[in-house]
Amino acid sequence: MSSETVRLSLAEAYEFARITLLNAGLGPDHATSIATLLTKTQGDDCHSHGLYRLLSCVRCLKLGKVDPNAVPVLHDKAAGIVTVDARFGFSPLAFDIGRPMLMEKARTQGIAAMAINNCFHFSALWPEMEALAAEGLAAIAMTPSHSWVAPSGGKTPVFGTNPFAFGWPRPGTLPLVFDFATSETARGEIELHRRAGKDIPSGWAIDADGKSTTDPSAALEGAMLPFGGHKGSALSMMIELMAGPLIGDALSSESMAFDNGAKVTPCHGELIIAFDPARFLGGRSEEHLLKADTLFDAVLGQGARLPSQRRYQARARSQTDGVLIPLELYNELKQL
Amino acid sequence: MSSETVRLSLAEAYEFARITLLNAGLGPDHATSIATLLTKTQGDDCHSHGLYRLLSCVRCLKLGKVDPNAVPVLHDKAAGIVTVDARFGFSPLAFDIGRPMLMEKARTQGIAAMAINNCFHFSALWPEMEALAAEGLAAIAMTPSHSWVAPSGGKTPVFGTNPFAFGWPRPGTLPLVFDFATSETARGEIELHRRAGKDIPSGWAIDADGKSTTDPSAALEGAMLPFGGHKGSALSMMIELMAGPLIGDALSSESMAFDNGAKVTPCHGELIIAFDPARFLGGRSEEHLLKADTLFDAVLGQGARLPSQRRYQARARSQTDGVLIPLELYNELKQL
Repeated sequence: MSSETVRLSLAEAYEFARITLLNAGLGPDHATSIATLLTKTQGDDCHSHGLYRLLSCVRCLKLGKVDPNAVPVLHDKAAGIVTVDARFGFSPLAFDIGRPMLMEKARTQGIAAMAINNCFHFSALWPEMEALAAEGLAAIAMTPSHSWVAPSGGKTPVFGTNPFAFGWPRPGTLPLVFDFATSETARGEIELHRRAGKDIPSGWAIDADGKSTTDPSAALEGAMLPFGGHKGSALSMMIELMAGPLIGDALSSESMAFDNGAKVTPCHGELIIAFDPARFLGGRSEEHLLKADTLFDAVLGQGARLPSQRRYQARARSQTDGVLIPLELYNELKQL
Repeated sequence: MSSETVRLSLAEAYEFARITLLNAGLGPDHATSIATLLTKTQGDDCHSHGLYRLLSCVRCLKLGKVDPNAVPVLHDKAAGIVTVDARFGFSPLAFDIGRPMLMEKARTQGIAAMAINNCFHFSALWPEMEALAAEGLAAIAMTPSHSWVAPSGGKTPVFGTNPFAFGWPRPGTLPLVFDFATSETARGEIELHRRAGKDIPSGWAIDADGKSTTDPSAALEGAMLPFGGHKGSALSMMIELMAGPLIGDALSSESMAFDNGAKVTPCHGELIIAFDPARFLGGRSEEHLLKADTLFDAVLGQGARLPSQRRYQARARSQTDGVLIPLELYNELKQL
């Protein structure tokens, strides 16, 4: 693979993404939401969730799986619940449409939940967490995926890679945000090892007989493993339940069945919970939020990193220097 | 240590715990809440959270750290938030007093939060999760502890062992419940290895220089490690923030400072979130809750276990056979 790269300013990256999506037949509102998101992730050096994802978006559109003009429908479901039916469109526009009501409910009730249903999900969850935390709310999000991961002590895939994300508002500075898969690694990582002819570390996956394997092909035909043994497995099960049956949407196994071998991005639900510190704390809100700095300082002071630290460093760099895209990917995207 | 045991029926275990607490000067409402809790945990074979905990409860009382007659104060803080100020008493009574309002708010709003503040915490979180799930609500709980755990990539204790718990209602059968520490192991486990003169597995802890150690004494003077590397570490940080500053209560480091070397159980806050599936799903609630059985069947069908399975088996046994307490512990408790 060539190591040549193309440099794009963030504005150019955004326009490139937007035009690519419009040319692939995606409706303008969806194209705007997705281009905004991919520019943000690319600018934060999340290459696997950056412009690279245009490939799978366009593939999804060409296969006719996703509705390019789906208009998400907002429901004021209960005092503390908003739901957005994405109507088999991509998820980012659904989030954008639901966010104001979620925020309003969190600010009124102190806590509120948003369920996004029937959406095609390809994005990281952290941009959503950051968007809420930037407005002063703490937030948690979770979503299933496709059933690739065996439960701890098992050997057959049941759970998805089921990401869990969190955002925390910091007065006067960027929010603390994290977002991790509850699988030991990303499925794409195993695929990359297979393509490079390299072994995977043990602990990532098991083969079809349930035995530990370092062979990426055997791993892809077997099952991925949850992170952190039975604890990660329990967390992954919680995500299946909370962003599945609780919100009337698909388990990872159902989402995989719905995909029916097309290998497009999962279609399912997402659960987001927002908390307003001002409602929990009243006038002492800022004082307590600032106390969290004691915690962050104790982590940083010993040379450990905060979850969002690297991304924010990349962001500062991207704002002046733009982003670097592999030339091969850039050319491939141009031909879409 | 003698392997002799004493068999008590659940009713006898309850009365034994209650009388022990009353004799130690604990107020009757607290004694009832705690005796109920310890009988339940003992009956479920959670020995480390069973009658054994009477030792630390009584020690706490004798040291004058905990208020034996604290009357928890309930606040209707916002439409979606209830707070209970435990006023430096033990936590179980505070939970019992706050639970009805939490449930009512969850059923009205769809989602609600309960913050318990200024409570001495020695119990597992799962009985609280089961109590809510048994009433048809899904629930999440978290609490900090004492700062014993280093962040991933660090070497100095910052986080507590910070448990995370979850409950899920299952129509017609016992709820699914889990409860795990976000540290790789319990501090008591390291202590037990030290007393037995045994090495601990690598990955549990680091020494004071930040190096991996299998020496339990070096581990106790160094730092415990989070489970699951940077992901478990991130989850532990979330718990510090959500059950600390968000609810106006202590970080694990503050709780440790408050303890001031007395080595009693942590005094701090707890956050509980309750979700009403009926509000999320309307008339389709039971249909979707039953769909979760697909997931549970897929786990059980491959020989893996569900999180609460062993406890429920123990419970069924305890209901007919009672519980077995080591004679040495029983005699020690009788002399309190």
